[in-house]
Amino acid sequence: MAKPFMDEDFLLETPTALTLYHEYAAPQPILDYHCHLPPAEIAGNKQFRNITEIWLGGDHYKWRFMRSAGVPEEFITGNQPDQEKFRRFCEVLPLAVGNPLYHWCHLELRRFFGLDTLVSAETADSLWDACNAKLGTPEFSTRSLMVRAKVRAVCTTDDPIDDLANHQAIAADSSFTVKVLPTFRPDRSFNIDRAEFADYIGKLGDVSGVRINRFADVLRALDARMDHFARHGCRLSDHGVDVTFFAEATEAELDAILARRLSGETLTPKEVEQYKTAVLLHLGREYAKRDWAMQLHMGALRNNNTRMFKQLGPDTGWDSITDSLVASNLSRYLDALDRDGLLPRTILYCLNPAQNEVLGTMIGNFQDGRVFGKMQFGSGWWFNDQKDGMIRQMTALACLGNLGAFVGMLTDSRSFLSYTRHEYFRRILCNLIGGWVENGEYPQDWAQLKRVVEGICYGNASRYFGLGTD
Amino acid sequence: MAKPFMDEDFLLETPTALTLYHEYAAPQPILDYHCHLPPAEIAGNKQFRNITEIWLGGDHYKWRFMRSAGVPEEFITGNQPDQEKFRRFCEVLPLAVGNPLYHWCHLELRRFFGLDTLVSAETADSLWDACNAKLGTPEFSTRSLMVRAKVRAVCTTDDPIDDLANHQAIAADSSFTVKVLPTFRPDRSFNIDRAEFADYIGKLGDVSGVRINRFADVLRALDARMDHFARHGCRLSDHGVDVTFFAEATEAELDAILARRLSGETLTPKEVEQYKTAVLLHLGREYAKRDWAMQLHMGALRNNNTRMFKQLGPDTGWDSITDSLVASNLSRYLDALDRDGLLPRTILYCLNPAQNEVLGTMIGNFQDGRVFGKMQFGSGWWFNDQKDGMIRQMTALACLGNLGAFVGMLTDSRSFLSYTRHEYFRRILCNLIGGWVENGEYPQDWAQLKRVVEGICYGNASRYFGLGTD
Amino acid sequence: MAKPFMDEDFLLETPTALTLYHEYAAPQPILDYHCHLPPAEIAGNKQFRNITEIWLGGDHYKWRFMRSAGVPEEFITGNQPDQEKFRRFCEVLPLAVGNPLYHWCHLELRRFFGLDTLVSAETADSLWDACNAKLGTPEFSTRSLMVRAKVRAVCTTDDPIDDLANHQAIAADSSFTVKVLPTFRPDRSFNIDRAEFADYIGKLGDVSGVRINRFADVLRALDARMDHFARHGCRLSDHGVDVTFFAEATEAELDAILARRLSGETLTPKEVEQYKTAVLLHLGREYAKRDWAMQLHMGALRNNNTRMFKQLGPDTGWDSITDSLVASNLSRYLDALDRDGLLPRTILYCLNPAQNEVLGTMIGNFQDGRVFGKMQFGSGWWFNDQKDGMIRQMTALACLGNLGAFVGMLTDSRSFLSYTRHEYFRRILCNLIGGWVENGEYPQDWAQLKRVVEGICYGNASRYFGLGTD
Repeated sequence: MAKPFMDEDFLLETPTALTLYHEYAAPQPILDYHCHLPPAEIAGNKQFRNITEIWLGGDHYKWRFMRSAGVPEEFITGNQPDQEKFRRFCEVLPLAVGNPLYHWCHLELRRFFGLDTLVSAETADSLWDACNAKLGTPEFSTRSLMVRAKVRAVCTTDDPIDDLANHQAIAADSSFTVKVLPTFRPDRSFNIDRAEFADYIGKLGDVSGVRINRFADVLRALDARMDHFARHGCRLSDHGVDVTFFAEATEAELDAILARRLSGETLTPKEVEQYKTAVLLHLGREYAKRDWAMQLHMGALRNNNTRMFKQLGPDTGWDSITDSLVASNLSRYLDALDRDGLLPRTILYCLNPAQNEVLGTMIGNFQDGRVFGKMQFGSGWWFNDQKDGMIRQMTALACLGNLGAFVGMLTDSRSFLSYTRHEYFRRILCNLIGGWVENGEYPQDWAQLKRVVEGICYGNASRYFGLGTD
Repeated sequence: MAKPFMDEDFLLETPTALTLYHEYAAPQPILDYHCHLPPAEIAGNKQFRNITEIWLGGDHYKWRFMRSAGVPEEFITGNQPDQEKFRRFCEVLPLAVGNPLYHWCHLELRRFFGLDTLVSAETADSLWDACNAKLGTPEFSTRSLMVRAKVRAVCTTDDPIDDLANHQAIAADSSFTVKVLPTFRPDRSFNIDRAEFADYIGKLGDVSGVRINRFADVLRALDARMDHFARHGCRLSDHGVDVTFFAEATEAELDAILARRLSGETLTPKEVEQYKTAVLLHLGREYAKRDWAMQLHMGALRNNNTRMFKQLGPDTGWDSITDSLVASNLSRYLDALDRDGLLPRTILYCLNPAQNEVLGTMIGNFQDGRVFGKMQFGSGWWFNDQKDGMIRQMTALACLGNLGAFVGMLTDSRSFLSYTRHEYFRRILCNLIGGWVENGEYPQDWAQLKRVVEGICYGNASRYFGLGTD
Repeated sequence: MAKPFMDEDFLLETPTALTLYHEYAAPQPILDYHCHLPPAEIAGNKQFRNITEIWLGGDHYKWRFMRSAGVPEEFITGNQPDQEKFRRFCEVLPLAVGNPLYHWCHLELRRFFGLDTLVSAETADSLWDACNAKLGTPEFSTRSLMVRAKVRAVCTTDDPIDDLANHQAIAADSSFTVKVLPTFRPDRSFNIDRAEFADYIGKLGDVSGVRINRFADVLRALDARMDHFARHGCRLSDHGVDVTFFAEATEAELDAILARRLSGETLTPKEVEQYKTAVLLHLGREYAKRDWAMQLHMGALRNNNTRMFKQLGPDTGWDSITDSLVASNLSRYLDALDRDGLLPRTILYCLNPAQNEVLGTMIGNFQDGRVFGKMQFGSGWWFNDQKDGMIRQMTALACLGNLGAFVGMLTDSRSFLSYTRHEYFRRILCNLIGGWVENGEYPQDWAQLKRVVEGICYGNASRYFGLGTD
């Protein structure tokens, strides 16, 4: 008989998997070390006006799916009423066979709303009513959602010029014990080829009190901002490195590159790479000195649709996976830091799963025998944040590296309902390991299994990031 | 107990899979929207002289396999008697464990010939007799084979200079109700780097009544041929784009490039790309205006074996998969069309399955919310037209896109027996979805499952291509 | 109930798999046609002083794992006592869930030592005692280990300048019947970009009695060494081609390139490629003339960690997988040999499994219909020498090529205990084929299955390499 849809043993196919999940994984709290939650919504303990706002307000995964099903843009990001948008979404979601959206939506309904209704055209209106009624209650404020999900800490993603006032306000409120810490994401400081670069450098100079003329000034300004972030508990950095690069340059060359760019000139591709390389090398060394972790997100091909970019801007569902080469430049970058003894703990993510084995072996080149799992191959990112993607990432890591040292899952999400993705991940993890045990590929040694599973679900990350969550 | 080989539940591993296949998938007719059937053989309602002709006469899959097993070329494409060739094939086929050839051959024997004999050295002679006896009967004419397979329409692959007389003859014969429509495949008009280019342009000018001197003349000639194809019911185009390209050029540059090439000069790689890009951009826009679908077949590395190319010519089994990069140029091409509001419905195929996730996300960049599944990631092509390839293509599409909007299978075949590949595909599809249902990953909601399965097997393609097959 | 860990039916999930393994695969002897065993240790019939020496003395897989688990280098390659090193290894091995190390270690304990103890911190000391006691007995000499594993022949990996004295001594000792044959690995003769090139060419000239001034002299020296190797029973060659290349040059250009390099100049990347291409073309043709097999190992990114390279040298665990492109240059190289009718039997390996389908189809371009399985897609190499890697390699080969013609497994190992990897491979092979049979995808035709399984385990390789092991 077919297993009921999404019951308590969802995704758990063997007795060992059941035990691993229910005994070891499920009780663990959540350390969401990489997300895109707006700190202001935590500081303000925001409530949501309806299910459309919290589900469809900013979720480009859902937008892309609706477009692929022929739903017109006016019902997605346009001016149609919220309930109409929700109806259109409910109508097409049943087509999402094998798609994580189908699971995420129903997990969120079950775990947060206590509703086991299947989403469809027929149930759209009753869901609209039921969800909205609950969203108005205190249990559905941003802070309540985090507490209900057993979140111990989240790391948001923040620009160096951010004043972190919201983080400060949250930290100052002792009634809310979830740690909300900033992550240093300095992309705009090294994306010298973007139109807004000069403006950004101006702002960076302003907030850091550094007058930026020469290359060293950029670094001094960034250092000042890292100091500022550190004062707010920052222990992580993050970088969108769509295409890897490595091109060295002298200080004089970098000064010239910066000067030409700030005066409005267009740089050669090599000059862009030289500037980016120099900034990233400095940042990596600084992270090592400050004992921060470094995250590198590679392999995205962004803003492919010019027409819609003009209409909606970035991060609205027009990005995809690139096949550009990764290995050589990445190796040279990590090696340059390591040669100086200043390679920080590092997590590598690549959007292209064809690179899983490249990353799964790259980390082994720089494990230093001092930090447990110093170099990490990060959990299935973005388009890979689904069952197939997770299985492939974890299988590659297990076969090529050290699954037992893995820091595990993060949501990477803008939504306060996404904590169910940790549950999703944990079920897949436990099913994977449980399957190996059932098949005689690993002994049913509960003590070792507990050590591994609890570590991946929480303990490894807690120790790795040093956020004071032990 | 082991399941019997290829019984009626072949490839169906769960009760849900059985129901999905037998109830929903199997009854659907076939819309084979991309194949290489010779229209003359349909017009002439050809019969085959023996099993060697229909199985081994033009099938480079089988030729490659025979060569890999050490069968000399004289028994493959050479002068040995047909029965000897068949014997050699039967002798080596049992080595094809895990190879689609093993399944295709036995499916064809079972479905068309009613024979459940296993192919081997021992059965070669009895199969020779049994098959040949049947091939002489009217049930084995080309038209009968199509009717027996419940084919509603096929789209052949045709050069712009083709007069389509065979298509016209078939359409004029009201006794044969299968639609046989042309597909516009203008590769020779943009492959300016091939030796035969100038000759081809001459012929293109002749049939279109356009004297081709300047670049605009090429486009006018192609437009005339599109009009001609449209008059014969054409609704699809197809392009072999082995390596993606995108290099813009002015009209003057294109005129110069064309002139130099027609006068026998060799072009630079950049010039070749500029010419190809300009032709493909024009074609894409024209397809959009005519409401045709566009197919792009990428990633083949052709004619690798010079010695055998000289002996046998192209398409004789010496091609393989390339690892050249795809994403960036493809994105720029699609975006250029979209910017003009002239991106047609498009199906992307890549021979390299390492690119599955690149294509599975690329389509999402250009879904426009107006056409259901406008951008398609095409079914496992050529070397990927087998169980592992299909599972990977459909899993990627399901996880990254919208499986429910998929237009499904095509044979891409030169053989009238290949319709069993639709059965093969449908079984794999139903087993994949059925497995998800059995495992609690999708509800056993028969109405939604029927909508999805019937859509992928027939309805989506029927609506997408608009061939009047509803 | 979970299957016991690593029992006699380890990795065998169906009745057909059990029969295939126990009846056909397990009884086969071993032909280890590619390994890195030190011939001196066979000639001297070495014994090992303790389990640390044989397990941790030179195994960079284990070293990498220990580093990833935070074990300091002094306990890996450093000066800590052997027992301390062993303790640290035992402590972290239970983290290797899903890693082949976990299986390899326990298989070796079971098969060679007769110990079914699980490795852990708790068992480290008892294992130390038990293993060391056995290692002191004659059953654990290098030759005994080979005989106990039913090894018929091994092919070591040897530099052209090697005098092969150890091979001669082993061959002369009629009391030891395992064939120990050299493999010609001329990497240092074509790696013209390495610092040691000039020195090496000097030595090559000395041992071959050729004064090397011009390019033709290099080839003459290599020819002389091939003659020398042939006199010691060599039938295979091997090449580390990290990145594929193909750049043609004239004899005069090659003379100039060589002269400039020998006088200490640095060459351009193109010159390096020209020289390498010319040497590899000559070698390929010579192998064909001598009826040797050619192995090409592609896709490694070596010595990524400069700091540790300076400390420990090459092959100490700082290598990974590259994503550089393979297909085009490889095709041109093979085609160039084939055009002359001098393409030898060839085995292609790529460290990047994303290239599996490229290689699985590339071999089909050059099958010549004369040699059974002439072109081979080699077994999962190095990082792919594990369950997932093997399944993917064999699935790709089965779907795209001819699994029945596969020459199967090799250890590629420096350890005399690694023969259990053949068992590991055979179990995975039998489970894969057995699963297809159980699922009705291949008939339960025992005669054909025996032909295929025995062939892959031993017979195909025995016939392919012609080492006189039939």
